[in-house]
Amino acid sequence: MRSAISVLMRVAVLVLAGSVAVSTVEAADREKLLSEPGVYGTFAAFHLDADWAKEGQAMRITQLLTLKGVVEQHREKVAIDVYLLRGLSDRADVLFRIHAAELRETQQFLLDLQASQFGRHLTDSTIFSGLTKKANYVPGMPDNLKTELKLPSDPGSKPYVIVIPIRKDADWWSLPQAQRAAMMQEHTEASLPYSKTVKRKLYHATGLDDLDFITYFETSQLEDFQSLILALEKVKEFRHNRRFGHPTLLGTVRSLDEVIEVLAQ
Amino acid sequence: MRSAISVLMRVAVLVLAGSVAVSTVEAADREKLLSEPGVYGTFAAFHLDADWAKEGQAMRITQLLTLKGVVEQHREKVAIDVYLLRGLSDRADVLFRIHAAELRETQQFLLDLQASQFGRHLTDSTIFSGLTKKANYVPGMPDNLKTELKLPSDPGSKPYVIVIPIRKDADWWSLPQAQRAAMMQEHTEASLPYSKTVKRKLYHATGLDDLDFITYFETSQLEDFQSLILALEKVKEFRHNRRFGHPTLLGTVRSLDEVIEVLAQ
Amino acid sequence: MRSAISVLMRVAVLVLAGSVAVSTVEAADREKLLSEPGVYGTFAAFHLDADWAKEGQAMRITQLLTLKGVVEQHREKVAIDVYLLRGLSDRADVLFRIHAAELRETQQFLLDLQASQFGRHLTDSTIFSGLTKKANYVPGMPDNLKTELKLPSDPGSKPYVIVIPIRKDADWWSLPQAQRAAMMQEHTEASLPYSKTVKRKLYHATGLDDLDFITYFETSQLEDFQSLILALEKVKEFRHNRRFGHPTLLGTVRSLDEVIEVLAQ
Amino acid sequence: MRSAISVLMRVAVLVLAGSVAVSTVEAADREKLLSEPGVYGTFAAFHLDADWAKEGQAMRITQLLTLKGVVEQHREKVAIDVYLLRGLSDRADVLFRIHAAELRETQQFLLDLQASQFGRHLTDSTIFSGLTKKANYVPGMPDNLKTELKLPSDPGSKPYVIVIPIRKDADWWSLPQAQRAAMMQEHTEASLPYSKTVKRKLYHATGLDDLDFITYFETSQLEDFQSLILALEKVKEFRHNRRFGHPTLLGTVRSLDEVIEVLAQ
Amino acid sequence: MRSAISVLMRVAVLVLAGSVAVSTVEAADREKLLSEPGVYGTFAAFHLDADWAKEGQAMRITQLLTLKGVVEQHREKVAIDVYLLRGLSDRADVLFRIHAAELRETQQFLLDLQASQFGRHLTDSTIFSGLTKKANYVPGMPDNLKTELKLPSDPGSKPYVIVIPIRKDADWWSLPQAQRAAMMQEHTEASLPYSKTVKRKLYHATGLDDLDFITYFETSQLEDFQSLILALEKVKEFRHNRRFGHPTLLGTVRSLDEVIEVLAQ
Repeated sequence: MRSAISVLMRVAVLVLAGSVAVSTVEAADREKLLSEPGVYGTFAAFHLDADWAKEGQAMRITQLLTLKGVVEQHREKVAIDVYLLRGLSDRADVLFRIHAAELRETQQFLLDLQASQFGRHLTDSTIFSGLTKKANYVPGMPDNLKTELKLPSDPGSKPYVIVIPIRKDADWWSLPQAQRAAMMQEHTEASLPYSKTVKRKLYHATGLDDLDFITYFETSQLEDFQSLILALEKVKEFRHNRRFGHPTLLGTVRSLDEVIEVLAQ
Repeated sequence: MRSAISVLMRVAVLVLAGSVAVSTVEAADREKLLSEPGVYGTFAAFHLDADWAKEGQAMRITQLLTLKGVVEQHREKVAIDVYLLRGLSDRADVLFRIHAAELRETQQFLLDLQASQFGRHLTDSTIFSGLTKKANYVPGMPDNLKTELKLPSDPGSKPYVIVIPIRKDADWWSLPQAQRAAMMQEHTEASLPYSKTVKRKLYHATGLDDLDFITYFETSQLEDFQSLILALEKVKEFRHNRRFGHPTLLGTVRSLDEVIEVLAQ
Repeated sequence: MRSAISVLMRVAVLVLAGSVAVSTVEAADREKLLSEPGVYGTFAAFHLDADWAKEGQAMRITQLLTLKGVVEQHREKVAIDVYLLRGLSDRADVLFRIHAAELRETQQFLLDLQASQFGRHLTDSTIFSGLTKKANYVPGMPDNLKTELKLPSDPGSKPYVIVIPIRKDADWWSLPQAQRAAMMQEHTEASLPYSKTVKRKLYHATGLDDLDFITYFETSQLEDFQSLILALEKVKEFRHNRRFGHPTLLGTVRSLDEVIEVLAQ
Repeated sequence: MRSAISVLMRVAVLVLAGSVAVSTVEAADREKLLSEPGVYGTFAAFHLDADWAKEGQAMRITQLLTLKGVVEQHREKVAIDVYLLRGLSDRADVLFRIHAAELRETQQFLLDLQASQFGRHLTDSTIFSGLTKKANYVPGMPDNLKTELKLPSDPGSKPYVIVIPIRKDADWWSLPQAQRAAMMQEHTEASLPYSKTVKRKLYHATGLDDLDFITYFETSQLEDFQSLILALEKVKEFRHNRRFGHPTLLGTVRSLDEVIEVLAQ
Repeated sequence: MRSAISVLMRVAVLVLAGSVAVSTVEAADREKLLSEPGVYGTFAAFHLDADWAKEGQAMRITQLLTLKGVVEQHREKVAIDVYLLRGLSDRADVLFRIHAAELRETQQFLLDLQASQFGRHLTDSTIFSGLTKKANYVPGMPDNLKTELKLPSDPGSKPYVIVIPIRKDADWWSLPQAQRAAMMQEHTEASLPYSKTVKRKLYHATGLDDLDFITYFETSQLEDFQSLILALEKVKEFRHNRRFGHPTLLGTVRSLDEVIEVLAQ
């Protein structure tokens, strides 16, 4: 019986969600925002408050439509991804990743989100931001390594997401550039065997929060991801991580409609 | 008089709980999930919120049946164990251990659990996950040690459960494999005298949370368990634990029906 | 006028509390539980929630009687002491110390306590447990020292209680036994001048919580207690304490009726 | 449609806000307070409580006018700046920076703020204060460096604000003055390339809170700000920071009317 | 208009407060408690809960009178000082300093305070206690230094209060007495220039809480206080502080009537 209800509700949610006017201006720059340097990436994770669970389902659906509305409204300027952390991470229930050319645009999205009927149930926020940059540490890297690094990971859905913030120790920053580059080359080589099954993205966070890097991973093979982290823990550069995680965010990649459906239950 | 009420309630709870249709597809793979490598184990501990205590007993029983329903519904895919921490650990009231071939299935169970009438009272979650692997550290281990390790612990109920998460320091991971193996052999030898009365299970957590291992223990002899930990604290490998506990979860192994009965009171 | 009300209330509370049927099976083993090795001691400290203060006095008294009832009911199996921390410690309002042959019995008491009308106001619990053992560190200790150690502290009420949890560092456990014994002898000698005015009891907590020892003190001379701790801070063994306190619990020893009277106000 | 409502509301808020009698005594000393040594700067950040989101918009506007009133009333004695952190920092929603000749005047402003209808929704405060001083560390600094330091940053709005508290380690304070001065000169030189696009201000906090310095930054080029911090992390003096951030506050510079408009939504 | 209301309310509060019967037994021993060794000093800081702000002013005044009543009632046995932290410290809104010959008397005052109508709004308590002792570290101190130390600080009101808890490291306590004395002499000499404008008092806290000392300061010259702390940070003894602050409490010295007036607003 549960399945029957679930299917019915699923239809109801998607029909209602579909009735929110979708902007005809498609999010033209999404690809650019997700691939270019000089873009700000913000990770904003939230718990739903205790009142959310107490709302009736009809009210929850109404409020989730305001979430859909705010996301649609901002899609022209910022690229928004959404993840479900509940059940896999105790730090938050949902995670938004927002890419924008200017952090002011990200702030405006989050202000509108939190001012929405849905957003008023968001609490215990965890927010950190970083900047994408051109890969730069490894000038003397062999060409074949560079070529391999440029290969995209295998296509296909990668349902798991992991976000790990990192802070380097003071020693790291006072090392000569050449020494840091050598360590980063070792780091890179250790990660190569996993480049096909684990997709990675790096954000530079120094000064924008209490950390230096945000590392972002997607994979369908969590076991490969774990092997990757174990490999990285064994290289010298790892010893310069003063903070690695805290929090480690683990969840699943979801479409906005999927998240809406789950939260409507 | 209290006993009389207690017995009555016990009957009521068990009758009601029995009326939840138990899936005829028995949880066929439970043994495999609990014994094989490559399985994800998730520990999800929760407090009950302040509203729970204020609900009347009839309402609590109604809600506990939704707990029973969700567990039954997911038993085909995931193996679910339940523990009572209240009274022995300040971190949580109940603990679920879920084994699954894929973390997505664990997430779906916990999403359904939290969406249930009972689950809406779960708060302050503590969640961490690890992966079971073949024992691998000790290639040169003497055969008699291997044989002893393969002996199962003494049969019979082991009412106490202890879960201790561990994070190794950066030095540990940069040691040569042979050195780590030698230290692990010393660790293993130290633990042998307790293998009959303390049942152990190990999960590899690196990258999935802010820790490297989850160690799980069951025993009927807490004093033996304490001697085991004291023995492990004295070997060299222990000096590479950056985090040991925090939290240490201590509780009792309970059937789902026992937990339902306790929480119905 | 306050005094008049206070006296009236005192009478009312004691009369009502007296009407709770006291088990005729006296807690025969209390002395054994408090003096023998192999006994589990659990420290469970709680805050009263904000609703408690808002209840009317009649309701508070009714609920305090359920506290009395639960304690009476469990007195056959476990030894229960109660302390008032409010006003001297910000960690909790009340502290229970429970001695039991099995931690399951302690858990059952605390489950019943928290399920009672009174217990539903208990929140923010701090719980840790340890095991009593025979004194064992100091085999080569001079006989006169041993004799002095066996003398009981001066009789008479010791109104103040202090509980300090301790975790040793990894170095401590890897020291040769003889070296640890020598340090413990120095520790013991430093504490001797205070053995008459400060009563001590030691619990071994390794593995049961994130600590190694629970040290318990009663005294009527807080200044002597402070001198004792200062003396202990000066011996070598102190340098192996990775955690000392956190929390330090300071309160007053009270009878259950006194605690009921204070909380009824 | 949202925009139409937004414009209407904007007009309503500004008209109402305008009707609050603005003190004719202009804040004459604002420039002095913001530029002279011997002035106390207090950073007071707050979350809005859960009730705020549940108030109707009319009520929120009414209450925001009390914010405006309190600020106007205190403008004669203290200089008040306001920032929007929500969406960029999880530590707080709004930040006030107050400059005053005496901390008592700052306290009076914050007491009146929190006693106002609006202020009753402020919660989870983060407050720290420091004192402005004449630049003093670098007596032997070359004249051209001094000249460059005195050049103001480029005019124009600098929409982003970052506040980073710092605590030095004990080694720092025990270094000979000359050695500290040499390190500060290196620090200063590293920061020079960013003096045009990143505006800085320093507060001495030792003894007033658990930190030694409060560093304040405004910029329109967050990427430059990040490069500045990276440059500072590479100089020797950085190794003497025991705490750097925790929290790092990131937000946008706003007029009081802008903040009122955002919070009215 | 605000001022008019304010004056009216001020009168109302003081008239009402005056009508609380003031004990004719003056607090005869206040001077002794504040100046002699062997006295316990307790610092109890509290936030006011969210309900306080929602009470009407008449109700707040009624409840503040119960604060006044409790203080009056205990003045015979304990010396009570009160401070306003709100606006300058995020740790608490009000701070009580209680001096008593026995901590039991302090506990009784705080029990009565928290049981009062006003006290039920006190939450998030921060409590620590220490013992006054005769100055004892510096036996070989030159006579002129001793003479200077005995000079009282300049008379006149000292509106600011700062409380800094300190925990020494294990090295400190294992140093030979002579070495500690030499370091304390250096410490004392560094503080001498500020003895006229900064009043100090020291409490020994070892064993009573997770710290060794509580340092208390009053001053009208916060800049001098800051210079004092900077001077103390430069002496060798400072390197043995494992904890310095956490929290640092900063506020203003107020009479009970002033605090009542502020909280009535």
